[in-house]
Amino acid sequence: METIKNAIGRLVPTEINGEKQIPFQGVGKYKPEGFIHAPKISSNVDFPLDGNKKVASLKDALIKAGLKDGMTISTHHHFRNGDLIANQIFDIAKELGVKNLRWFPSASFPCHEHLIQYLEDGTINRIEGSMNGALGRFCSEGKMKGIAVLRSHGGRYQAVQDGEVKIDIAVIGAACADSFGNANGLYGQSASGLLGFALADSEYAKKVIVVTDNMVAFPCIPWQIQGNHVDFTVEMDKVGIPEQIVSGTTEITKSPDRLLLAEMTAQFCDVTGIIKDGFSFQTGAGGTSLSVSEYFGEIMRERGIKARFARGGSNKYLVKMLEEGLIEYILDGQTFDLDGVRSMAENKNHVWTSPFTSYNYHSKGNFAGIVDVVILGATEVDVNFNANVVTHSDGYLLHGIGGWQNCLFSKTVILPIPLFRDRIPVIIDEVTTICGPGELIDVIVTERGIAINPLRTDLIEKAKNSNLPIKTIHELKEEAEKICGVPKKPELTDEIIAVIKWVDGTIIDSVYKVKQ
Amino acid sequence: METIKNAIGRLVPTEINGEKQIPFQGVGKYKPEGFIHAPKISSNVDFPLDGNKKVASLKDALIKAGLKDGMTISTHHHFRNGDLIANQIFDIAKELGVKNLRWFPSASFPCHEHLIQYLEDGTINRIEGSMNGALGRFCSEGKMKGIAVLRSHGGRYQAVQDGEVKIDIAVIGAACADSFGNANGLYGQSASGLLGFALADSEYAKKVIVVTDNMVAFPCIPWQIQGNHVDFTVEMDKVGIPEQIVSGTTEITKSPDRLLLAEMTAQFCDVTGIIKDGFSFQTGAGGTSLSVSEYFGEIMRERGIKARFARGGSNKYLVKMLEEGLIEYILDGQTFDLDGVRSMAENKNHVWTSPFTSYNYHSKGNFAGIVDVVILGATEVDVNFNANVVTHSDGYLLHGIGGWQNCLFSKTVILPIPLFRDRIPVIIDEVTTICGPGELIDVIVTERGIAINPLRTDLIEKAKNSNLPIKTIHELKEEAEKICGVPKKPELTDEIIAVIKWVDGTIIDSVYKVKQ
Repeated sequence: METIKNAIGRLVPTEINGEKQIPFQGVGKYKPEGFIHAPKISSNVDFPLDGNKKVASLKDALIKAGLKDGMTISTHHHFRNGDLIANQIFDIAKELGVKNLRWFPSASFPCHEHLIQYLEDGTINRIEGSMNGALGRFCSEGKMKGIAVLRSHGGRYQAVQDGEVKIDIAVIGAACADSFGNANGLYGQSASGLLGFALADSEYAKKVIVVTDNMVAFPCIPWQIQGNHVDFTVEMDKVGIPEQIVSGTTEITKSPDRLLLAEMTAQFCDVTGIIKDGFSFQTGAGGTSLSVSEYFGEIMRERGIKARFARGGSNKYLVKMLEEGLIEYILDGQTFDLDGVRSMAENKNHVWTSPFTSYNYHSKGNFAGIVDVVILGATEVDVNFNANVVTHSDGYLLHGIGGWQNCLFSKTVILPIPLFRDRIPVIIDEVTTICGPGELIDVIVTERGIAINPLRTDLIEKAKNSNLPIKTIHELKEEAEKICGVPKKPELTDEIIAVIKWVDGTIIDSVYKVKQ
Repeated sequence: METIKNAIGRLVPTEINGEKQIPFQGVGKYKPEGFIHAPKISSNVDFPLDGNKKVASLKDALIKAGLKDGMTISTHHHFRNGDLIANQIFDIAKELGVKNLRWFPSASFPCHEHLIQYLEDGTINRIEGSMNGALGRFCSEGKMKGIAVLRSHGGRYQAVQDGEVKIDIAVIGAACADSFGNANGLYGQSASGLLGFALADSEYAKKVIVVTDNMVAFPCIPWQIQGNHVDFTVEMDKVGIPEQIVSGTTEITKSPDRLLLAEMTAQFCDVTGIIKDGFSFQTGAGGTSLSVSEYFGEIMRERGIKARFARGGSNKYLVKMLEEGLIEYILDGQTFDLDGVRSMAENKNHVWTSPFTSYNYHSKGNFAGIVDVVILGATEVDVNFNANVVTHSDGYLLHGIGGWQNCLFSKTVILPIPLFRDRIPVIIDEVTTICGPGELIDVIVTERGIAINPLRTDLIEKAKNSNLPIKTIHELKEEAEKICGVPKKPELTDEIIAVIKWVDGTIIDSVYKVKQ
């Protein structure tokens, strides 16, 4: 495989899976030349005039959609680990003897371990999307036939919009739909809140199938997915496992270390004037992030101020703040629990968004840059503030990018992370995989000190006279090494098994097969 | 001008304004071959990272958008006769010495008479859109430089989506917007309800300008227009004249003749079983149509049934029915009064739609065909049930098509019309301009009898034993002629001054210059 050194010094392939690639050229340096992907013009002539597009089964729909060798099949991950659709699609493909498919999920979950057999027998050539757990291990061990491609949520929208990934068949599971194909994630046993991750698929895929276990009479309101994009609808008993759809991660951390990180993060935001009337913030779904918003709430109550909006993933803590009036709007990308779903269904100020509105880098702006402060995680950070979210210190590919890269465009990016995990330092000389360039990462908050990116002289100035433990990133690294020793590099081969796309479709880094 | 006889026997030009045209080929006979219009891929790099796209003035925005000779400038008509934007655009164009523009409004109103000077001096080459009042007269008298093109609401979306009309600059007036460009018609002094007629413009135009007199902090919720499509935002004192935005047409007719038409129409729907639990209907904004929905309401109350949905234009009568529980949903395309605006802002079951969801013929189905019964008007109907909505009996082009053509795809299409107007018969041998083919028009209700299209044997059968005055269309025509005499044909030249597009982009008829 031919490689080239990109603008951040990483070797990346010039071609993967038979397609030419563009190496990362620096933040804001690459500008696309082409035109948005243009689907073939449809005509009402080819669709039932009464709007009823229902077919007997998912198998029927896939056959009618022309499922065949080499196609790209997309799914969304709003059902998370409770998804019952993706596995069925490939069971059907196997049954029909179809081979060499590209699975293009917006994310995969442990429940999709079922698909390893199809990666092995050639039904599926490769996955382009996050690979957690068993699938990540399978890929990291070099067992996947094609090269995996990981994209951020915004990057996935960009890739579809730009025609970089042409979806042949999109299968969109929905908690609620009508026979015309209007669908939402709000009502029914498989409620997932919203369906934004399937938006690009519905707009640009050649064929679109909506599958639901709650078919209502037209019109299904709201139509988060518009039936005008849909070819076939399918009703089945169960599209998801409710207990697994709402994630278990939305509990505030009880770990004193993490609570300390969260508190320090909130204090930093207070001291530097980020928390002010009308500000905006985004915190992830992890325990530390959740705690940060709780601390934000305390400060806001104390000061008598409110936030104009919070960007989601939403959860019961954020919903409580909305209902208390501490936040005017939640702009939600995915609901993590049932309180989120309820609030989105009831409250006009709890607004569903999509990777298009929030994250697409190839549009006339998006929401990410408007957010005042975003609190994110990382598996590793290096002394240049570059961060990794996909591979672990042992080199295994175990996480997706999610909206992480997209959020880096917010006005201030803070990563509260422990200085070490399992006695392995998190701040190191060079991250295993670069997912985000250091120039976009402003602050690292650890239990033993806070490092501010030297580029952010404004923040350094503002934090100077606080009683917060401001240190350099090198000091933090040395402190970690004093306690844990210098960490070993992961043992990797030089075989590229996956690439990490930047938000503009260029390749920012490669992921290598681990030595076993 | 070279012409060809199309599938409905009308002579239509093979080329207009320098572009090749396709003659109407019959309902459902023409299928497009190409791809949806693909705008150039944008990049966030070219937009302010903090999302603030505000520029000083509309003039500034037009200059930044690159306004120059020969461009296509689009506007929407949600401000109706209270629009203050379109005239300003062309005042600015005149000031800048720009020539030969195509104005592509979703409709024009009497307030746009101001633009005649620019049609005369070459600032504007032509209007593609409805022309009411003075503009229609100007066009009918052969004074417009280019050939006018009239499209239905759905046809306008189709034309933009298919790249038949490439918009250079879309200017979208909004009652409420943020500096990023998110916009809605719901809140503020210039509230118009919704902005659906500008949807295609926002999605496909090269440059998009949002203009508002009510700029709110991000996020403007809901975003009927998505800021991600917007290039520039402008704040000004006043975008519309409130009293003229909400139309004066939404009063129920007091004319006994019209009330009779409405009552007969409702009775017909009752007798033929169209009014049943869970049915759906659409009535226009004219006095007769409004009365029909009132009669529907009476029947529904009596029978204890409700409608699943009504398609809008909404108005206080429809809103009352929604609030009373007689209708589950209003699927609204434009709000005609303040009760409509209020209801849309407050009530989740009052849903804003767009020409894309409701009417676009070049998609995977639309809402029109799902509606059980639609009540429409016409200026003329011929013995083959072909109908005219754009020209008067004197040949003058005085109306737009609106959603009329699109609605013809509903399950049953009823036209309640007086047998004659000002002693001129409305049912005639051949309509001046064919806007809708007779095969799609099912029932003509007049004060002296109801004619059912022979194609609808089912309706004929159901109405047979009712006490409704069922007649043939020929009988109705003769009756009119017995009273008024045989009407004179309008005096027209053979110069084509406008064409009428069918919902698929083909030309169904030509409009001729009147003899003066």
